[in-house]
Parts: sequence; C-alpha cells; structure tokens
Amino acid sequence: MKAEIITIGGELLDGSQVDLNAVYLGSRLTSLGAEVVRISSVPDAVDDIEEATSRALERADLVITTGGLGVTADDRTKQAVARLFGRKLVLDEGVLEKVRARFEARDVPMPEINIAVAMLPEGARSIENQRGTAPGLLFEKGEALLFVLPGVPVELRSMFESFVSPFLEGKGLRRLAQERLIRTTGLAESEIAERIEQLARRLARTDVVYLPSATGVDLKVIGRGQTSVEATKTAEKSQEKIAAKLGSYVYARGDESLEKVVGYLLSMGGSTLSVAESCTGGRVGWRLTRVPGSSDYFKGGVIAYSDDLKKRLLGVKASVLKKHGAVSSETALMMARGVREKCATDYGLAITGVAGPGGGTKTKPVGMVFAAVAGGAGERVRELRLGGGRGSIRRAACQGALELLRRFLLNIEEPG
Amino acid sequence: MKAEIITIGGELLDGSQVDLNAVYLGSRLTSLGAEVVRISSVPDAVDDIEEATSRALERADLVITTGGLGVTADDRTKQAVARLFGRKLVLDEGVLEKVRARFEARDVPMPEINIAVAMLPEGARSIENQRGTAPGLLFEKGEALLFVLPGVPVELRSMFESFVSPFLEGKGLRRLAQERLIRTTGLAESEIAERIEQLARRLARTDVVYLPSATGVDLKVIGRGQTSVEATKTAEKSQEKIAAKLGSYVYARGDESLEKVVGYLLSMGGSTLSVAESCTGGRVGWRLTRVPGSSDYFKGGVIAYSDDLKKRLLGVKASVLKKHGAVSSETALMMARGVREKCATDYGLAITGVAGPGGGTKTKPVGMVFAAVAGGAGERVRELRLGGGRGSIRRAACQGALELLRRFLLNIEEPG
Repeated sequence: MKAEIITIGGELLDGSQVDLNAVYLGSRLTSLGAEVVRISSVPDAVDDIEEATSRALERADLVITTGGLGVTADDRTKQAVARLFGRKLVLDEGVLEKVRARFEARDVPMPEINIAVAMLPEGARSIENQRGTAPGLLFEKGEALLFVLPGVPVELRSMFESFVSPFLEGKGLRRLAQERLIRTTGLAESEIAERIEQLARRLARTDVVYLPSATGVDLKVIGRGQTSVEATKTAEKSQEKIAAKLGSYVYARGDESLEKVVGYLLSMGGSTLSVAESCTGGRVGWRLTRVPGSSDYFKGGVIAYSDDLKKRLLGVKASVLKKHGAVSSETALMMARGVREKCATDYGLAITGVAGPGGGTKTKPVGMVFAAVAGGAGERVRELRLGGGRGSIRRAACQGALELLRRFLLNIEEPG
Repeated sequence: MKAEIITIGGELLDGSQVDLNAVYLGSRLTSLGAEVVRISSVPDAVDDIEEATSRALERADLVITTGGLGVTADDRTKQAVARLFGRKLVLDEGVLEKVRARFEARDVPMPEINIAVAMLPEGARSIENQRGTAPGLLFEKGEALLFVLPGVPVELRSMFESFVSPFLEGKGLRRLAQERLIRTTGLAESEIAERIEQLARRLARTDVVYLPSATGVDLKVIGRGQTSVEATKTAEKSQEKIAAKLGSYVYARGDESLEKVVGYLLSMGGSTLSVAESCTGGRVGWRLTRVPGSSDYFKGGVIAYSDDLKKRLLGVKASVLKKHGAVSSETALMMARGVREKCATDYGLAITGVAGPGGGTKTKPVGMVFAAVAGGAGERVRELRLGGGRGSIRRAACQGALELLRRFLLNIEEPG
C-alpha cells in the first residue's frame, strides 16, 4: 500500500516550525507496513490543498492530510476537499451538540464561530476528536482512502491511534517491514559502500539506508515480508550478513551509543576509567556521563587545555613537550599514564590535537589528533587525520578516542 | 518569486529523520523575500525525483532540491535531473581532481566509487562544495531556476550561503524582512511574554518569534519594510526596545553563545579561568573550548565525577562532604576554590548536582544543582532547581554556571 502525507500550514513552509506531524505519521504508517512515497507541505489555501490532495490520490492508495481543520480564517482544508469531491458543506447536528457540550462542561458559552466546526462535507464519514473540537473526516474513493486529520499534535495522535490505525489494520495492513540498526565508526560512507554494496544488492526483500555523520556511519537495514515474523527474520538475517562484512568496525547492532558500549565493557571487567582531554575540552567526559549509572566505572579526569596544566595536573614532562610538542603520541601517552595515576583508575584515556581553525603547522596540520589509552597490562596510541571544521574535528576526535578504548578493552587490533 | 523545496531520502519519509534541511531552506528563502509554496519529500528513486522536480518547475520560479548527491546506490538525484533535462552524465575532470585531492590530503587512496561524484549532467553549472566532495548543480530553464544541492546539512548550508543566496540577491531578490536575535537565560517563556507582549503588539511592522530551549529563550525579532534599509531599521529599533524590557536577562544581541560572551569578558579583563565539573562531566569545558582562541583565557580544569576525585584533585575536605554532601553550596564553593588554586587561574567555576534519573533524595531531589565561582575579589554561589530529564538538567546546569560567571564578571546582581 502506497501512502502520501500532506501537511497544511504556512508555518511549515517559512521555516518557523519543524514538521513533527510528518515524522509521526511517516513512522506510524511505515510500521503498519505502508510505503510512504511522498510528504507534501502546502499553505492554508484552498487551491493548493485541493491540487496536492488530488495529485496524491492519483499516485497513492492512502492519503492523510493534517492541519487546517480549525475555525480561524486560515483553516481551509474542509472547503478544499469538499470542492475536490464536489460536495457541499452541511451542518452536522450531532457534531454541533458535542462541541456545545465541551464548552458547557467548562461553564463557558460556545462562541458562534464554532458552528463552523460542525459544517462537514456531505456524505463524508466523521471521526470523533477526543482531544479537541474539530472532527476528522474519512473519504473512500474507489480503492483509495483519504483521511483528513487535525494539525494539533495531541489531537492528531489520538485520532490516528484510536481510529486510523485500527481501521487500516482491519483493511489488512500489518507490520510488514522491520528495521535493524548497525553502527560503525572508522570507515567513510564510500568505504562501507565498497564493502557491502554487492551483498546489499543480492539480499532479498532488504533495503539498506546510510546515515553518515562526523562520528561514523549508521546503517538502517529494512527487511520486508508477507508477515511480521517474516519481516523480522529477513531484517535480522540481513543485519547479520552486513555486519559480518564490516567486522570490527561495527560497535553496536542496535541503537546503543559508543559511550554506552564502552561503559558496558568497563562494567563487565569491574574496571574504572579516567580521561585527560586537551583539544576536546571535556567532551569525552560529558559523553561518558550521559549514561545513567556511569559513576560505577567513570571517575572523572583532567581537562588539560594549556601546556601548563598538562605538566601541573598530569605530570607530562617539560622535556617531552619541548622535544615532541603538545600534539604528539609521546604527550598523549604521558597524559593517559598521568591521569590514570592521579585518579587511581584502571585505565586512563587521553586526547591531544589541533582542532583549528588556527594553530596548524606543516608537520602538525589542523585535524591531526593523537589519542592514547594506558592500562595496567599495556598501552596504545592512535593517530587521526580528521577533516571538516573545528566542531567536526573535535567530535570525531572524541569518537576516535572512545573507539581506541573499545578495541583495547576487547583486545581487537587497531585498523590497518 | 514562488519557491519550492524538494527534500530527497527515504529517511525523511519513514519517520526516521526530522527534515531540518526543509526548515533551514524555508527560513532562508523566506528571509530573502521568496514565497515558499510547497515542500515535497520524495524517496531516492529516479522516477519520484524526476516527477516531483518537473511538477515543481511548472508551479514555481525557483526550485531547490537537497539530498541524493552522494556515491552510494541510493543517491539518484543526478540521474533524475539529467533525464528530466535530456542530458547525459559526463566526467568533469576538474571536479574529479578536487575529490582526489581531498583523499590525498588524508593520505588515503580514493575509492573508485567516488568517480561517480564527478559525473555531471552535460551543460549544467556546477557549484563548488567547500565542505564535502559532491558539487551542487544549477540549471536555468527559461525564467525558472533549479538548484540541486547536497543533503548533508553543513554542505547544504555552506553552499546556500556562499553561492545560492548571493546568486538570488543578484537576481533582484532582496531582504525585505530582516531578523535580529535577542538571547536570554533565566526567564521562562511565559515570564518573557508577560514582560514584552504589550510592547510587542504595539511595535509596527515587527514580529517576535519565541525560540525556547533547555538553556534559555531566544527571541527572533523580524522587521519588515518596503526596502532592505527600512526593514533593517525596523528590526534594530524593535530589538532595542524589547531587549531593554528584559534587562540583565539578555546575554547577547545577536547569535553569540554564552560561552563566547563569557570568553570576551575574560579576555577584556586579561583574566584566566578553570572549571571543576561533577554532574556535567566536562560539558562546560567543551562549551568554553568551542570558541576558537579560547586557550587565551581558558586553561582547563578537573572533571570530579566521584567524591574521591573531589578530594584528591580539588582538595575538597572529607568533613565538608560528610557534613553537607557532594551536592551543596559548601562543596561547590570548595571545588571552585580548589580548581582555581590547582590550575593557578584568576577564576574557578564549579558545578555539582543531581542529574538523575536516580540518586535523588527528599532534601536533594533530582534537578538540584549548585554552581559556584571563586575569584580573588570574591565568590558567589547559585542554587538551581531544574526540571526535565537527565540531558536537559545537565545542559541547563552548564548554562546556569556560565550565567553565574557572566553576572559575576559584569558585577550584576544575581536575579531575585
């Protein structure tokens, strides 16, 4: 079943409001097994609403509009659909009674303007609004369905869950698609594509969506099937095959963050961690402490933004800073060892780098970052060459350091 | 000028991603004086993209597409527009050279798949991508303009600001609306409304948009006029009047962040700062170091997530922790004094609190946070009672601490 969503309102077009109704409807329709093929946002104008609805009904089996059902001058949806179907607006006494009752319950006389709420296109089925005054509408045109729903989020959701969803399930729409996530870091989108595109094309009833960011690439694996069980099976099998191709670059099969995965590994080992951050200024600490309960394994650390504090709080030797510079594997290692010792933790994790925009040199350009981990049984250093602006470099540096720690804790080699 | 926006990608249709590119483009086009008459989201499929683009060009004078320009199998926009205009995709050597250079700069061989980036529709004008690999495209069809832009937000924005916006301004689109920002913290949206609504209603040709978040309320003041100069004058006068009503709660008239304002104040005084963070885990440090050049005044500090590190690294006395607890004004003050001394800075700023979800008690509930600042000439403590989840509490705690410091540096009283 192909579905289209039409969201109505000027505030959606001029950037003053994020279209969260479209996100909600897109997500709910997809999970019901419909394929959402278009979302259109149009102004509160009869012509625009009519044209968009008419086109959508040509392309899709199911169309849902949201917005423009209130009583103010910019609520035009009913006029538009009435014109599209060649119907008149007539007073629905039952609806008017309910609206009047809502006002009476609050001991307020009903403003006359609300009569407009009860004017419905002839022959349309009205849908009760349990959270507001304006009812929704359902039109059936041959095989196609048109739902006209309000734009107020609580009203929309209540109406969708109590009426639209059961109605569509009754028509035989079931969860025919299931999603599984694969989270990776350390490979560019194009490097991932090279590894999995051939496989992804061969996988039956499976779509793969790439979600790249400064810290890695997430893959959404969508499996389809005739039944919900079949779709789940397909999604999980495909997830497994794709993850296998990506090997140790996969840090989570699900929506866990890297800091959560690292926290889990530390918990499992009954180990503690401290951090020493230069160019990232505290972000690794912030990320680790996003996880509720992180105090079990994360103790804190040092933000050593200046060289003075690298010496003063972490015991980095002046001679090392002089010989190798603050941005070097040697300094990173001494920071990791220093913070581990000062904080009396099992592991110390350190980052130092050139985040830019200034401060780069020929041998140490903007984007050069060193991360180091020190533990009782060993140490590791990772050199990163990061692109993008200051923000991206710093985010990616944090991710790289956490990934270094993950591989170290799992005893997986660093990537070649 | 009528404009349409087409956003491309399955993740926009199935509810897995909010369409922030549409918000950005809608807002920018509106402020350039264009009327956005439709936003359509379509899947990465040649047929859908071609149909939507073709229709949009019939209705509007300006069409902008975003997304589907990468190198993976789900990037179809170029094929679609090439087919729509009856053009072939041909290799652009110049673009290929730039892509190759980006990989070489990172010492990585370019995966062959990236050649696809340099295949452009014959005769289209390419737009340089300063933040990524795939160039944008511009087609002119009679009076109508079609811009084909990337979907990665930083790439889209950079390309819009550096090329599209100047191009449209050159075509005679002028800013007939001008925006000015007022940034506040410490007042709720309703408290701001009480102070300014009467004034806002009286201000001619001015709209005020409230943009609330966990860290404060921004006000977008939109001034209109027959000319760009007139609109600017209106916006600036209205900004001034509204800001005057809000007094010391305004920390910026423009888009400066609070960390930037604080950094400016420290710079002006030739002073240095260190931080001691418990429940915020490093975020204040991260925020301060977002500002390029912050190393002039920010030296670093201590993430004292555990009580042990509060004693070990900051010299907080065990007796104070025992008597008043880790979440208390006494501990916050000792942390601020301790970090100031250990880091040898002019000011020390500290935060300790209960971020939740667990750990709250009757006397110290989730959301109770203390921030303290210590300087040579005095000290201040602020107690915050914050609502929301762990994330909101921690963000608001950072903002509260930075605001405490701002008022302290400016010698403005704490709010009553």
